[in-house]
Amino acid sequence: MSRLEIIPVHGVGEVERRSDVAAMIAEAAAAQDTPLRDGDAVVVTQKVVSKAEGAMVQVDPADPLSHKPVVEAESRRILRRRGELIISETRHGFVCANAGIDLSNVDRGWAALLPDDPDRSARRLRDQFRGRHGVNVAVVVSDTFGRPWRRGVTDVAIGSAGLVPVLDLRGTTDAYGRELMVTEVCVVDEVAAAAELVMGKALGVPAAIVRGLDPAWFSDRGGVLTDVVRAPADDLFR
Amino acid sequence: MSRLEIIPVHGVGEVERRSDVAAMIAEAAAAQDTPLRDGDAVVVTQKVVSKAEGAMVQVDPADPLSHKPVVEAESRRILRRRGELIISETRHGFVCANAGIDLSNVDRGWAALLPDDPDRSARRLRDQFRGRHGVNVAVVVSDTFGRPWRRGVTDVAIGSAGLVPVLDLRGTTDAYGRELMVTEVCVVDEVAAAAELVMGKALGVPAAIVRGLDPAWFSDRGGVLTDVVRAPADDLFR
Repeated sequence: MSRLEIIPVHGVGEVERRSDVAAMIAEAAAAQDTPLRDGDAVVVTQKVVSKAEGAMVQVDPADPLSHKPVVEAESRRILRRRGELIISETRHGFVCANAGIDLSNVDRGWAALLPDDPDRSARRLRDQFRGRHGVNVAVVVSDTFGRPWRRGVTDVAIGSAGLVPVLDLRGTTDAYGRELMVTEVCVVDEVAAAAELVMGKALGVPAAIVRGLDPAWFSDRGGVLTDVVRAPADDLFR
Repeated sequence: MSRLEIIPVHGVGEVERRSDVAAMIAEAAAAQDTPLRDGDAVVVTQKVVSKAEGAMVQVDPADPLSHKPVVEAESRRILRRRGELIISETRHGFVCANAGIDLSNVDRGWAALLPDDPDRSARRLRDQFRGRHGVNVAVVVSDTFGRPWRRGVTDVAIGSAGLVPVLDLRGTTDAYGRELMVTEVCVVDEVAAAAELVMGKALGVPAAIVRGLDPAWFSDRGGVLTDVVRAPADDLFR
């Protein structure tokens, strides 16, 4: 495996409802002399996808709790509450704080919801990169989630297109020739985490290029909702 | 933020008890024309740290369940069982499968335990890289963990030295000038995840260089056990 580059895409500009996010990213990448290439994975934050898709809801800027009814409406099930914090399972099956609803980096009086179907959002961007910009890239839509037992947040994939979301190593052997015990690696979450290292929360960098991934990991099949979200019967923590 | 490079270190060689892991990594990096540099983060897999430190236990190669008593001995608390799988909290406070005990990539008849104190392991490697090889690098000891609600495994940090484990963004503002809601980013876990993308499970690549991290993230203070593992009172999932 050769080296990876993780390249932040600066200068994307302000994304609004119906913005052509693929064009904005492709142009910004070219403008900073790192044009998109076949075989890249483009990580795009949930926030800009939600803004472009109009997945926004009005909140009362004077009331810090006004988004709570929205959280409950967007949640299939509440797992935990502590003070203002709600950890719930969204209708997509994601387990996260406040149903992924976020006030930061949006206009005052508005909150961003998670995209309705983040895998579909990723597929659309991939199709646009290919059809309008001539590059065959994978797309990962990333978001920032907390997790149990460990402090701090990390970015994970909430949608993907063009990458195998969970790499199946069954049947492969370790360096001693024995079949591996660990057989499924969630590469899209690792790609999202890697991209966050260059995007940062305050910088307003909404996209990054992950360049150099193994071509064998690219596939049109699968997505986060089908491949990464655990079915309830397989989840020991429901 | 400028780009990151994630560089696998090939040709490290077979690590055994008392191997000089820092020397093996420094030499292999130099041999492949990517010598370590000040400001790098070096990610090292738990497996080679455990081997070098002798954190190994004998198991019966004819009995696939013979490591179970060891799992229970290494665990502070069992969270879940399903068939042969045990998810437990280790004595360090990590929640993972089988107390992190692993049969792969070790000699037949042996299993690798987690290092006794992975932050100490990271500090020792950092001191050796600096004192014997003249480079000021951060060190992250990585391991592969599953997680609830999401399929597939990802790498996380079980030990670190020289990097702020959880970056505190409190007081910083978003692009709209509002104070950020998400204030703590676990950068060491994201560094571990990024490194796994080039290390792979079958390849036997035990180390990777993460080059280009923000110099402001480097610090001698903190580690995974103190900064990342949640205290029980703060953990909603205990």
